Amino acid sequence: MAGNSFGQLFRVTTAGESHGAGNVVIVDGCPAGLELSEADLQPDLDRRRPGQSKIVTQRQEPDTAEILSGVFEGKTTGTPIAVLIRNKDQRSRDYSDIKDKYRPGHADYTFDAKFGARDYRGGGRSSARETSVRVAAGAIAKKLLREKFGVNIIGYVTQVGPIIAPVDDPAGVTLEQVEATPVRCADPAKADEMIKLIEQLRSEQDSIGGVAEICASGVPAGWGEPVFDKLKADLGKAMFTLPAVLGVEYGAGFGVATMRGTENNDVFTRGEGGRIVTETNRHGGMLGGISSGMPIVLRCAVKPTSSLPQEQRTVTRAGESTTISTKGRHDPCLLPRFIPMAEAMVALVLADHAMRQAAQQSLHV
Amino acid sequence: MAGNSFGQLFRVTTAGESHGAGNVVIVDGCPAGLELSEADLQPDLDRRRPGQSKIVTQRQEPDTAEILSGVFEGKTTGTPIAVLIRNKDQRSRDYSDIKDKYRPGHADYTFDAKFGARDYRGGGRSSARETSVRVAAGAIAKKLLREKFGVNIIGYVTQVGPIIAPVDDPAGVTLEQVEATPVRCADPAKADEMIKLIEQLRSEQDSIGGVAEICASGVPAGWGEPVFDKLKADLGKAMFTLPAVLGVEYGAGFGVATMRGTENNDVFTRGEGGRIVTETNRHGGMLGGISSGMPIVLRCAVKPTSSLPQEQRTVTRAGESTTISTKGRHDPCLLPRFIPMAEAMVALVLADHAMRQAAQQSLHV
Amino acid sequence: MAGNSFGQLFRVTTAGESHGAGNVVIVDGCPAGLELSEADLQPDLDRRRPGQSKIVTQRQEPDTAEILSGVFEGKTTGTPIAVLIRNKDQRSRDYSDIKDKYRPGHADYTFDAKFGARDYRGGGRSSARETSVRVAAGAIAKKLLREKFGVNIIGYVTQVGPIIAPVDDPAGVTLEQVEATPVRCADPAKADEMIKLIEQLRSEQDSIGGVAEICASGVPAGWGEPVFDKLKADLGKAMFTLPAVLGVEYGAGFGVATMRGTENNDVFTRGEGGRIVTETNRHGGMLGGISSGMPIVLRCAVKPTSSLPQEQRTVTRAGESTTISTKGRHDPCLLPRFIPMAEAMVALVLADHAMRQAAQQSLHV
Amino acid sequence: MAGNSFGQLFRVTTAGESHGAGNVVIVDGCPAGLELSEADLQPDLDRRRPGQSKIVTQRQEPDTAEILSGVFEGKTTGTPIAVLIRNKDQRSRDYSDIKDKYRPGHADYTFDAKFGARDYRGGGRSSARETSVRVAAGAIAKKLLREKFGVNIIGYVTQVGPIIAPVDDPAGVTLEQVEATPVRCADPAKADEMIKLIEQLRSEQDSIGGVAEICASGVPAGWGEPVFDKLKADLGKAMFTLPAVLGVEYGAGFGVATMRGTENNDVFTRGEGGRIVTETNRHGGMLGGISSGMPIVLRCAVKPTSSLPQEQRTVTRAGESTTISTKGRHDPCLLPRFIPMAEAMVALVLADHAMRQAAQQSLHV
Repeated sequence: MAGNSFGQLFRVTTAGESHGAGNVVIVDGCPAGLELSEADLQPDLDRRRPGQSKIVTQRQEPDTAEILSGVFEGKTTGTPIAVLIRNKDQRSRDYSDIKDKYRPGHADYTFDAKFGARDYRGGGRSSARETSVRVAAGAIAKKLLREKFGVNIIGYVTQVGPIIAPVDDPAGVTLEQVEATPVRCADPAKADEMIKLIEQLRSEQDSIGGVAEICASGVPAGWGEPVFDKLKADLGKAMFTLPAVLGVEYGAGFGVATMRGTENNDVFTRGEGGRIVTETNRHGGMLGGISSGMPIVLRCAVKPTSSLPQEQRTVTRAGESTTISTKGRHDPCLLPRFIPMAEAMVALVLADHAMRQAAQQSLHV
Repeated sequence: MAGNSFGQLFRVTTAGESHGAGNVVIVDGCPAGLELSEADLQPDLDRRRPGQSKIVTQRQEPDTAEILSGVFEGKTTGTPIAVLIRNKDQRSRDYSDIKDKYRPGHADYTFDAKFGARDYRGGGRSSARETSVRVAAGAIAKKLLREKFGVNIIGYVTQVGPIIAPVDDPAGVTLEQVEATPVRCADPAKADEMIKLIEQLRSEQDSIGGVAEICASGVPAGWGEPVFDKLKADLGKAMFTLPAVLGVEYGAGFGVATMRGTENNDVFTRGEGGRIVTETNRHGGMLGGISSGMPIVLRCAVKPTSSLPQEQRTVTRAGESTTISTKGRHDPCLLPRFIPMAEAMVALVLADHAMRQAAQQSLHV
Repeated sequence: MAGNSFGQLFRVTTAGESHGAGNVVIVDGCPAGLELSEADLQPDLDRRRPGQSKIVTQRQEPDTAEILSGVFEGKTTGTPIAVLIRNKDQRSRDYSDIKDKYRPGHADYTFDAKFGARDYRGGGRSSARETSVRVAAGAIAKKLLREKFGVNIIGYVTQVGPIIAPVDDPAGVTLEQVEATPVRCADPAKADEMIKLIEQLRSEQDSIGGVAEICASGVPAGWGEPVFDKLKADLGKAMFTLPAVLGVEYGAGFGVATMRGTENNDVFTRGEGGRIVTETNRHGGMLGGISSGMPIVLRCAVKPTSSLPQEQRTVTRAGESTTISTKGRHDPCLLPRFIPMAEAMVALVLADHAMRQAAQQSLHV
Repeated sequence: MAGNSFGQLFRVTTAGESHGAGNVVIVDGCPAGLELSEADLQPDLDRRRPGQSKIVTQRQEPDTAEILSGVFEGKTTGTPIAVLIRNKDQRSRDYSDIKDKYRPGHADYTFDAKFGARDYRGGGRSSARETSVRVAAGAIAKKLLREKFGVNIIGYVTQVGPIIAPVDDPAGVTLEQVEATPVRCADPAKADEMIKLIEQLRSEQDSIGGVAEICASGVPAGWGEPVFDKLKADLGKAMFTLPAVLGVEYGAGFGVATMRGTENNDVFTRGEGGRIVTETNRHGGMLGGISSGMPIVLRCAVKPTSSLPQEQRTVTRAGESTTISTKGRHDPCLLPRFIPMAEAMVALVLADHAMRQAAQQSLHV
């Protein structure tokens, strides 16, 4: 399989490139009876799209979604839902630089090595444009999770360069807090600092990395499978499918390296309504790869944008030394637009495992 | 699918619990013609097994593998290879503690939440014993990668608690260096410190976390798929399938959060024999999710062993407060035995993607 | 998985209904470098579309395909190919009959039983309209098979009601012969009889069944997998995915029931160029589920169209007795339009197994 | 994927050859809580095994199954169930004939063409011995279907050579009727004729084909998926995975070719308890690929055994003319032992689709 499908019971398959006719996703397995229209998809698409604020790329792409199938009289039918997002900006421009040179940090060289050729217009299939339909599919998954399972997913930026804004109670962060600032950091003061830093980087023709945190609350204990399809494994894969992600961690994350067992173990206790909970959540909401009922908390390290307006050294396809400067309009920091993509991927994994566990439980003999 | 299979073209399916009759793996898709016998599997099984040194658990499990199928006249036939590792130590003991109480940090509670019941003997399917057959399958993958593709995989411990032993040239680390010390750290001086720390922790009835680094060298550019089956995504999933892993990162990893694009981008240049390489390897060997030809370097954060001989607070299945102390013999630090497991999972992913790329290339029109 | 994907390495996923916005297919895994444009898809779409001749339904649907992705500068890139066929005829009409009554022989009742509701316009997802994008994908598979593997696939009608037109040399039948007559029977005299019978049935407001035979020639020995993914198993599944198919057989088919081993066994001998062949082809081109190098010959039994203009007894959704007569324009015999659908499904299976065997062989150690 | 797995939610993976150490199946996805022991598997294994009666092969293979995992305190745990059947009769004999010659009707030539070599002892992976573990897995599926869903599966022989024993009410046939005679025909008089014919064929060193019918009763309406995973498609594939099957048909089967729509359509009416049923069952229990609630009825054409004690012409691996006579003990007619294999495959498909529909329904929003 060429790797353009994701999920088992709630399964998405995508196609499309940066400068082709458009991007398509087929969502196979969404249960029947869910109210759904394009209006459910647009908010997250707007959070992902270029040109949404001053600190992201100024390209203008409306990213309007059309539902082609699977919905009848306002409800899903149980048959596959296809969503099409046409590319608007397909005008011909001069791609000779990208065509014959390898941009540092991009997939130009590796695509050529893989396929022998590539669609070099705007990165082709390796463009972040491909994530638009994932966000559309994620919006469907989010709605299913919210309405059927009471699960809420929220992402926010906790670090841009040296500016760190840790969150004490991830499950308490609201969409309003996150959307109050274009950088999508839940701490308004830190958000202002981050914005200033990003603007400075842009003026210096440079870019900056950061960290995003995603929290899923309301997930009951029991989602995830014991061995290869551990929830942490599928979520980890999901995060690493996103461009620019170089690290993923849960709960205490890399911090566990210096911890003792007595420091790290989360003690079980009786919570609200007699429910079994842990007093702390260093485990990040999963034990043995299966959800514990505590909030699922994960963080992604996102590298600084590779495309830079300033000159960088590289080689041509023939291997000769040259320089390249990226002329397009690019994000000086990927984090603000990364948030809806990451939320979408978390939603796709959780919708899938929600269905797998529902299937498993409905069949208990 | 209940999640006990992994891989597409080189695909493993496992079964088995800690105290059942045994563990089994079926390797489906291994090419025909590979010389193979049980002797190829035993070295890695010996590196994984309990009782191998003073700093690991002192349980005695020989972990002897039997190849049941798929090999004829000393060579693989292209049909599935089943490997059986019988459990030796199945004697009945008193499991009443584990049966009725939830061990902190373990999957006891989440298994009950998922299945409504569980095989509580030694953790059942959530036991690390399940990884024995993964290591056997990984040994087959390693041999295929080495003999057919010239790929070498090596893992080593770079951190135990506060003791850090970074490696400058991951691709230069040898198996001999790693196996020279029971802690599997390539720096002998640091290794001694780590061993002392681990022994101290054991005497204090506590445990300690750490970090393992795995390097795959010799991987040509072009392995991995563009979107969902990015090599970094499949490797990331693979690592998170292993017990106790709370973080995974590649190359510069979480360090990218504070980097600028100009600092982070790896410059392409002409290497040995005219091959295109990057001057540095902050990207960790993959760009756009596809291998770049540079060494693949990843790190896993491994939590301290949850099982502790000292008393810990917890609850019973009924939700009542109690305490538990684990009476079995446990590893005071998981890292030494984690290395062969991690190498095995890396090998399974790479063998799969080696085959996928071979398939893709063999079909270029 | 909800069953809208087919194939492993050459994998298609479809979406769409009869009266939604359109039908989409994503072809994942087509190798890079294949010349491809919409012009390659249209001929088979024209062979499948309604209104193509006097003996099929007179609905007018142009079935124009748009390639949305995966092709650059006239060649496939190795990334997924999405094809969209918009539905033209979506005007609102009176569906109250279909909505509240169960058409005999149709999926109305079973869809309701499955999903609790259904898109009743024109059969929704159960409409043969869904096969349009399969034919588009099949055209891509056919081109790959022809250009890369030298495989040719041809289908033709061998029976309509009592009129039987057996073919002695399936591999010798040409597209020209088949397309010479609207009924797609390779025997011109029998074709005329069939056409007359179909026209008579139409005038009697009735329909008629028949048999189609598909032959794939040029398939080398070695395609197919030994156990579950036998070539005959995957082809059999493929045929049964098509509407109205109630039987599938290979070579001597059901005729083997009365044969002795000495009558049925095909003797191996040396053929042209020293190649090993069988003197006869009662086995239909596969032995042990793997292609033998002999032409693959299969036959499908296709039931008479269930939709009839005359009144038929049935029940309402509430289970009350009623009658129904289908007012739309329907095929009095499905066979002529079945041929391109069946060829497409055969092509999808063979392209997949061609790639699987190429992968397997490229990896022989 | 190399094709040794089958099913989505109830998924089996097999390994093993005729003369290796044994055959293994891993059943992944069986729900937790099903009472299960080896005693549940043995009856069907006994119905499949050689040496069970005078009219089958006289090889003695006890086929004793060992459950290695997935069962605890007498119940399934929801984790994978591995079953091992050791091969008893692995003594070395003279295989030089099979090794260097291609047996007509067997997979010897096609395996060599595929893999470049093969395990020639007793047919290796292409041996019917491989079906032993399928029968074991099928017994688990049958128990799940019976206890959880009220589904009963029964197979019987309806034709051996020219002797035809059609069954009017497939759902009424009992296991007792079938097992009353070694030929597994439900009509005692016809059974006697069949036995005589088979004994005659054996004495003539020849073999004979036949037809088996399988009926699944109690399947509710709604199982199966609309497009590629139609129930008839998955059942069709399942049947064609069995050795020697050259044709599969449902309900009226190939008989539909000569039928008119008015003759073939099954009229909906109100049945017992107000349930919607059809007056007749020419559709064989599925409409649009989804179960209709009527009994599922399918028939398989099984070719005469290819192995014959008398001399047959063939070629050597080098392509030179030679003759071969099979010295082993073979079934003069495959049908009696085919019945449990076919029932098992039907059970595997139905268990899978039962779970898929349960999942779908449990999630209706």
